[in-house]
Amino acid sequence: MSAVSRTTSHIRNDKLERLVVGRGSSDSSKIQHAMVLESLELSLSHGSNVRSIAEEASQAIGTRSEGYTLLVPADGSSALLSANSTLGLLRGLTTFEQLWYEWSGDTYTLEAPISIADSPAYPYRGFMLDTARNFFPVADIKRTLDAMSWVKMSELHWHVVDSQSFPLEVPGFTELASKGAYSSSMVYTASDVQDIVAYAGARGIDVMVEIDTPGHTAIISASHPEYVACAQASPWADFANEPPAGQLRLASSATTNFTASLLGAVAKMFPSRVMSTGGDELNTNCYMQDAETQAELNATGRTLEQALDVFTRTTHAAIEQEGKTPAVWEEMVLDHNVTLSNETLVLVWISSANAAAVAAKNFRIVHSPSDYFYLDCGAGEWIGDDVANSWCDPFKTWQKSYTFDPLANLTEDQTHLVLGGTFIHASYSCTSAHPLSGQQLLWTEQSSPANLDSIVWPRAASSAEVFWSGPGGNLSTALPRLHDIAFRMRQRGVNAIPLQPLWCHCGLGSVISIRRAACESEILGHAMLLFCLLSCSVLL
Amino acid sequence: MSAVSRTTSHIRNDKLERLVVGRGSSDSSKIQHAMVLESLELSLSHGSNVRSIAEEASQAIGTRSEGYTLLVPADGSSALLSANSTLGLLRGLTTFEQLWYEWSGDTYTLEAPISIADSPAYPYRGFMLDTARNFFPVADIKRTLDAMSWVKMSELHWHVVDSQSFPLEVPGFTELASKGAYSSSMVYTASDVQDIVAYAGARGIDVMVEIDTPGHTAIISASHPEYVACAQASPWADFANEPPAGQLRLASSATTNFTASLLGAVAKMFPSRVMSTGGDELNTNCYMQDAETQAELNATGRTLEQALDVFTRTTHAAIEQEGKTPAVWEEMVLDHNVTLSNETLVLVWISSANAAAVAAKNFRIVHSPSDYFYLDCGAGEWIGDDVANSWCDPFKTWQKSYTFDPLANLTEDQTHLVLGGTFIHASYSCTSAHPLSGQQLLWTEQSSPANLDSIVWPRAASSAEVFWSGPGGNLSTALPRLHDIAFRMRQRGVNAIPLQPLWCHCGLGSVISIRRAACESEILGHAMLLFCLLSCSVLL
Repeated sequence: MSAVSRTTSHIRNDKLERLVVGRGSSDSSKIQHAMVLESLELSLSHGSNVRSIAEEASQAIGTRSEGYTLLVPADGSSALLSANSTLGLLRGLTTFEQLWYEWSGDTYTLEAPISIADSPAYPYRGFMLDTARNFFPVADIKRTLDAMSWVKMSELHWHVVDSQSFPLEVPGFTELASKGAYSSSMVYTASDVQDIVAYAGARGIDVMVEIDTPGHTAIISASHPEYVACAQASPWADFANEPPAGQLRLASSATTNFTASLLGAVAKMFPSRVMSTGGDELNTNCYMQDAETQAELNATGRTLEQALDVFTRTTHAAIEQEGKTPAVWEEMVLDHNVTLSNETLVLVWISSANAAAVAAKNFRIVHSPSDYFYLDCGAGEWIGDDVANSWCDPFKTWQKSYTFDPLANLTEDQTHLVLGGTFIHASYSCTSAHPLSGQQLLWTEQSSPANLDSIVWPRAASSAEVFWSGPGGNLSTALPRLHDIAFRMRQRGVNAIPLQPLWCHCGLGSVISIRRAACESEILGHAMLLFCLLSCSVLL
Repeated sequence: MSAVSRTTSHIRNDKLERLVVGRGSSDSSKIQHAMVLESLELSLSHGSNVRSIAEEASQAIGTRSEGYTLLVPADGSSALLSANSTLGLLRGLTTFEQLWYEWSGDTYTLEAPISIADSPAYPYRGFMLDTARNFFPVADIKRTLDAMSWVKMSELHWHVVDSQSFPLEVPGFTELASKGAYSSSMVYTASDVQDIVAYAGARGIDVMVEIDTPGHTAIISASHPEYVACAQASPWADFANEPPAGQLRLASSATTNFTASLLGAVAKMFPSRVMSTGGDELNTNCYMQDAETQAELNATGRTLEQALDVFTRTTHAAIEQEGKTPAVWEEMVLDHNVTLSNETLVLVWISSANAAAVAAKNFRIVHSPSDYFYLDCGAGEWIGDDVANSWCDPFKTWQKSYTFDPLANLTEDQTHLVLGGTFIHASYSCTSAHPLSGQQLLWTEQSSPANLDSIVWPRAASSAEVFWSGPGGNLSTALPRLHDIAFRMRQRGVNAIPLQPLWCHCGLGSVISIRRAACESEILGHAMLLFCLLSCSVLL
């Protein structure tokens, strides 16, 4: 079981000395008298069928089994990890591998006996990556999936294409990438997609792909100019929220059918039960100025909104036919009047306050608010010669994200609508259990492989914790966990930044740290040595 | 000459295709008919003595010879790079190696004939790195020096120690690092320092070390508690601007003599003619509450300001004895009443507006203003559980830095006082010539090797250009140069981020770019092929 071998590798290689004054030196005597844990048993209680981790992770959101119990007795007898699914065992291993510190060659914990009954508060704990503004090689996406799995995230929302480039090779529609990718080397082939999906699945992560329509599609004009209104129109600001302008001719049946076929073909590439059709930032002026759209509307006697409804129903039917539930950005519910299944996932992004309006319409919510979870905010404006700062200033700190309340402004009977969020939700803490959802997002106008890790980690781990453990956590006690996971990430090849000077990671000098009290308070139990690095037994 | 071999290596390996629509495809026919440049001659006109690049780079600020002329005829005859110093030749090579693009195996420029007479507007074009809040291995500092040299920066301001850690091994004072470094592996040995200084010197960069005194010295209490007032005092905010509290007992003659000896020993490690003694953020309350300081003041009949004057004169004398001119932060001039040589460099940091007050006192200025050049701003507060953003919000964009005016608020007869700034000043543009100074700064509470490159590059190149070419540059025409240098940096191993989607780097798809006009306007001359990659002749 590769998850077990990854866990043993992490335990062997993390070598994290406790981030306290003197590191592990004050633990020495405890370590000398500690009991030795020689094995961890894995127990899978299942009903009729056993699914692989990947199969379980791609079940419908809300039906995946992720809970586990972990018992580490203080007397040195075998530890036990139990779950009802392989995915639950994976989550438990992820907790187990983060219990341990290193000192002087010993691997130990101070928390024995350990008894954890854990399951996520929210099923959708996501991270969104935009690979259209700037391209990210497969290796970068895999590294991101690794880090996501360490904080028990469940969903990669892959905003794969946009107006600037079309890096996805779609069977039957290969001209889109061959004409629309930044270069022939900046393409995700069908086999790359399989590779990414399998890699994600093995780590308990479902991949929800997004083909944003009808806006954000200028690049389609490179191969299919007939389907795109106001392509390259100038000044772009009159026709789009960011350059270049260009939107699918939603009133055209030819364009609608093309889009439906394309979405159907993309749907076949991904095992996930959800797929996003986008729907954000539709520019009305673009269609007003487009003679062909106006002619279509006149010919059919439809308003633009009526045409959008036909477009949406047709394209959603195409992915529903492939077994997918659609996801859309909030405008499709709040600004437009289109027919949507109430199963539809609605991504609330403009403001966290808008979740209430979406809930009032009885749609399921994935919290993706720009005022809490946009990792790209606060890095300056990217539109050329503008000295202003970014539209979504300021920078979203980990503290801001950590204080997000998924149920704010919702009534008691609306809480079941919250699936999660796209902030990253780190659960190296192993508390509580009550179900919700959210995700953190990286739009990549100013990101590339050069700063992917540093802009995301460990910041995004704070929302990961919100959506696994539930909101209301204490910032002071969360911070040492963030320091811990950042160290482990760096050991494992992810370039997480320090959130504070090393000195604050509990005071490594002789100077008493501002954080010492918080860290010391974490020591709850007795020392326990781990000697089972390579011999954890698996009982399936 | 290793500078020549670096240039040939860069020309061979950059392989930068022009960042325009279709990349170099539209240049193909021009390339086919281009003349071939087969050699570049280097000509050094000198007087009595020839200095190495490193020797020239460590001359007193304002006396270094950095100018050069570069002629690339259109007829294919030999190109000529002339300078009055080896340092000037280095600057010229740095320009030469950035003239070239790659297409289909050819290395070419579109700007022949080229005639450049270039010299810096300001002699001090700096970058400040803090290695105390978080540690940076030698390799990271060298990589930063590489990038600095590519944008013709002249000064590394090395804020090597601070209250959190003392990573500098000082001969005769090794206890400071052995007790005060984060760990024994997080120390710059004397041999590391030699290595860094030599590496910088070969790249035309002087290293100005800073031992910040009398504040920002809490960590000295780890080895010399007797010299430090209010060490670890709580709450720290009553005694220091950031934790941990602790300042040298400036009224004590023992502490003053210790500090003077330490500064003298550090001065011996660096060939530079300048050295910073700090002097920022002195906390008066710390000394008010310190019984020993109060006793000293009573015994000597001095006020705190008078004691500070003695301390400053004594410590400055120690470094002046080693041939160094002191540099200080602005408070030493604006908030205190100490005796300073008018040769002293004053680092203006609190606000760019304070340059006028420093100039009024007739001190030489290094622009380091937090409102323009602090690279760390806008990334959130690092003090634990505070949800607020950083004290110096917002993020300083490249556009903000680029619009900095070194002479703002100064009178005509004060302009000679401006030495430069610590923003990074990139001069792949090769314009103008009128002398000044400034630097960009990275405080590292939230930085580490994980985000060093991405937080600094290419942003800092914008101030590098301000201080080489002079202020008033056009943002729209600067942006393509920043894209170019960012690409070259990545090719050369520095993880510079994209400032825009790749699409904006002149529109790589078939969609016309918002930046296309700016890029096309750069094509000034004829095509010229370069075949001298390995055979540039050196005539010294």
